[in-house]
Amino acid sequence: MRFSAKFSIFAEIHDYLMIRTEETICAPATGAGGAIAVIRMSGSQSLNICEKIFFPYDKKIKLSEQKGYSLIYGEIKKGEEVTDDVMVSVYRAPHSYTGENAVEISCHASSYIQYNILELLLKNGAISAQPGEFTRRAFLNGKMDLLQAEAVADIIASSTAIAHKVAINQMRGGFSKEISNIRSQLLHFASMIELELDFGEDDVEFADRIKLKELIASTKTLSDKLASSFMLGNVIRNGIPVTITGKPNSGKSTLLNTLLMEERAIVSEIPGTTRDTIEDTVVIEGIEYRFIDTAGLRVTSDIVENLGIKKTHEKIDQASVVLFIDDIYDSAKSINIRANEIRNLIRDSGKKLFILINKIDQDSEGKVEMLSNKIETKKTDTLLFISAKERTGIEELKQKLGEVILKEKLSSDNVIITNIRHYEALQNVSQSLGRVLTGLDNQIPEDFLAIDIRQGIHYLGEITGEITSDEILGNIFKNFCIGK
Amino acid sequence: MRFSAKFSIFAEIHDYLMIRTEETICAPATGAGGAIAVIRMSGSQSLNICEKIFFPYDKKIKLSEQKGYSLIYGEIKKGEEVTDDVMVSVYRAPHSYTGENAVEISCHASSYIQYNILELLLKNGAISAQPGEFTRRAFLNGKMDLLQAEAVADIIASSTAIAHKVAINQMRGGFSKEISNIRSQLLHFASMIELELDFGEDDVEFADRIKLKELIASTKTLSDKLASSFMLGNVIRNGIPVTITGKPNSGKSTLLNTLLMEERAIVSEIPGTTRDTIEDTVVIEGIEYRFIDTAGLRVTSDIVENLGIKKTHEKIDQASVVLFIDDIYDSAKSINIRANEIRNLIRDSGKKLFILINKIDQDSEGKVEMLSNKIETKKTDTLLFISAKERTGIEELKQKLGEVILKEKLSSDNVIITNIRHYEALQNVSQSLGRVLTGLDNQIPEDFLAIDIRQGIHYLGEITGEITSDEILGNIFKNFCIGK
Repeated sequence: MRFSAKFSIFAEIHDYLMIRTEETICAPATGAGGAIAVIRMSGSQSLNICEKIFFPYDKKIKLSEQKGYSLIYGEIKKGEEVTDDVMVSVYRAPHSYTGENAVEISCHASSYIQYNILELLLKNGAISAQPGEFTRRAFLNGKMDLLQAEAVADIIASSTAIAHKVAINQMRGGFSKEISNIRSQLLHFASMIELELDFGEDDVEFADRIKLKELIASTKTLSDKLASSFMLGNVIRNGIPVTITGKPNSGKSTLLNTLLMEERAIVSEIPGTTRDTIEDTVVIEGIEYRFIDTAGLRVTSDIVENLGIKKTHEKIDQASVVLFIDDIYDSAKSINIRANEIRNLIRDSGKKLFILINKIDQDSEGKVEMLSNKIETKKTDTLLFISAKERTGIEELKQKLGEVILKEKLSSDNVIITNIRHYEALQNVSQSLGRVLTGLDNQIPEDFLAIDIRQGIHYLGEITGEITSDEILGNIFKNFCIGK
Repeated sequence: MRFSAKFSIFAEIHDYLMIRTEETICAPATGAGGAIAVIRMSGSQSLNICEKIFFPYDKKIKLSEQKGYSLIYGEIKKGEEVTDDVMVSVYRAPHSYTGENAVEISCHASSYIQYNILELLLKNGAISAQPGEFTRRAFLNGKMDLLQAEAVADIIASSTAIAHKVAINQMRGGFSKEISNIRSQLLHFASMIELELDFGEDDVEFADRIKLKELIASTKTLSDKLASSFMLGNVIRNGIPVTITGKPNSGKSTLLNTLLMEERAIVSEIPGTTRDTIEDTVVIEGIEYRFIDTAGLRVTSDIVENLGIKKTHEKIDQASVVLFIDDIYDSAKSINIRANEIRNLIRDSGKKLFILINKIDQDSEGKVEMLSNKIETKKTDTLLFISAKERTGIEELKQKLGEVILKEKLSSDNVIITNIRHYEALQNVSQSLGRVLTGLDNQIPEDFLAIDIRQGIHYLGEITGEITSDEILGNIFKNFCIGK
């Protein structure tokens, strides 16, 4: 049974990290500003440490004897001096985020008060939490798998409907289920093959080769499908890069403002909800578009000479969509020349070209009709006549933009990969299974089949965290914020 | 009983505001960023509204039947779609911040999620809270007086130990007690005098004139004392303005950096605690010093000609302390001329002049001794020899700075006024009582005495909110943040 030795790496890491998890950690959990702030503490000593500095107004209450899911009103004291009136939330293991005993102190949102409460907690035996340490503990204590833990960071960062939906789905185990299904089927076949090896000389086939091949093929297809969703997932997570180009005064910034204004109007409906709007990022129907600054890019007939094809290439290279804006005052000939130059830059990259002819509100001479007959378009181009100022054609532009990334794909409940770590693991799975398929066709020895199947299983385990290393964990959690 | 008609203004305002308080309000309560965010809702319908969008994981739990001070884990749903996993804190009237039924939804700190939860609450019958509306309700529901409500905003804003101490003391009713003592004594005498008026012609004196005079005098003294603490209170709240002046390269910025660095080192000990440090603000032993930019101010012998005395005056005018920095390479004569020019600007304003002779680490020729004999100082000046670079003399500088605003005053438990509204009301009280004293000396009719006593009582009532107007309330709460 060469391969049936159970993986002990995970257990070892867990033991190593347990040294740290014996400590009780604390950190501020809320952002700067606001009316109230929350300080989190997790670990076996949470209640005992909190009890030393927190005094319930109801003298009959003893914090360390309170049951989980209860709230207590009282004051934090530093010696005789009152630091603040606070509410303390009590959580009892395993019914907490981390699975450990935990408290949350809800205080006034003064940085001075937060600083003092944290200082008191540290003095009484807690230690400062590292970024993501609460979620890391949740993972180590079996409250969630690694996929779900990673989704927590994505949920906090999500700023669009679709990014949020994908992250919530992942946090709730949608993706984990798919991975786990594949994994358990492969495990079954792996053990069958290993059983054959145990019988060595007898030439017994416990694992039905036809069924195995079918399973491996369908699993590989699924891995490939998941891996291929990464391009879409990346767009969901990071937004669709769009380059707007066009000569000065063609209406580039008016168009951007028109798109931006609409979004901001929605956001500002509720006072106090500040969304970190990055200039030139527009969310249209739940999808984020990042407009790449093309300040230096002027598409003129001598563009190549003026700016160098390299620089232009870079700008276009970053984009999935190129919006080329011109206006009705330009000639069809000139527009065609410019559009062709962009097409030459795009070539076969799959980027989409939008030709937007602006200022149609000023068309008193039938220029729109004339231009629409004379402007040449390729099959993958989109030609639209708009008025950025009067908002004519903007709805159609939005709709066409949505189609670019195949919105229908998003509206289905398909699992979408947004994380490059998962993408790489899935590619490794696919490669291992590819070798198994080739091996089956060439009737190579079971030993080698088993190696490749086990490798596939290993990579799948890396995704969910069933197999992991301290380095992987460190990389994942270091990108979390403090207090999560 | 001309004056015994009870004040009905307050009751009327309360009725008027009750129209709004029948609504259930909601708002985000935490700042942007962080790991978790809290959304607050208060009002009779809080639990019912929350129940429509929140689904406990424990199916047996019915939110609207939960008792106060309990926590429930579950999910927020928008139709069939899960918006987030959240913890809901349940508060039952009157045991909540506002005194009403209330819930706090603790969700992931994604602006997208917060926006969606708020939208769901609004759709289900809540309305957006105005700034300070939660605290306003706490006041209207008798959970705190106006002084305490105002202290809440001060607590959130406090960034130094002393500002925090004064605000906490006020929130816990320290100042209210003093005001209330004065008020009840005055009320007693006012009713005695009004009783005399009722007996009209009989010339009865229920109110002992000698005792009354004593009380009025001591009350006036107390009001004056409280009002005079405002200057100190203002310094505590807004920091002590300090102007640093001196020729280029005398070490102005090195000194500032030395002072700043020390503070920042303390602050950065705990990761994640970000204090909004304004450039050039230094907290020394709990007192904030605001350094006023003197970029344009060069103290030279022809300063008057160069910059105009007006501009220089403005800079010095804003300061409580002027730090004049020079170095050991300058002559005593030149230093004396410069110092004198500053003294001429300061005159009798009570501002303190510090003469700091820097770079003593470079003194190989006994310049310090020579200068210390030749530099002329006035009684109120402080002359210090320092090395900003080597941190020599910095501790002494800090100590002397502290003495400038009479630190011993702060360490006592005296009540300190920090709010200009209270200051003005106390001045009005003092004036009314001053008229009573004059009236008593001149034996003016009881009618007029009663008017002035009642006016004093009225002003005292304005401070605590026993007598108030919608306009005053509006002004107070509009400066609060959303969610408090």
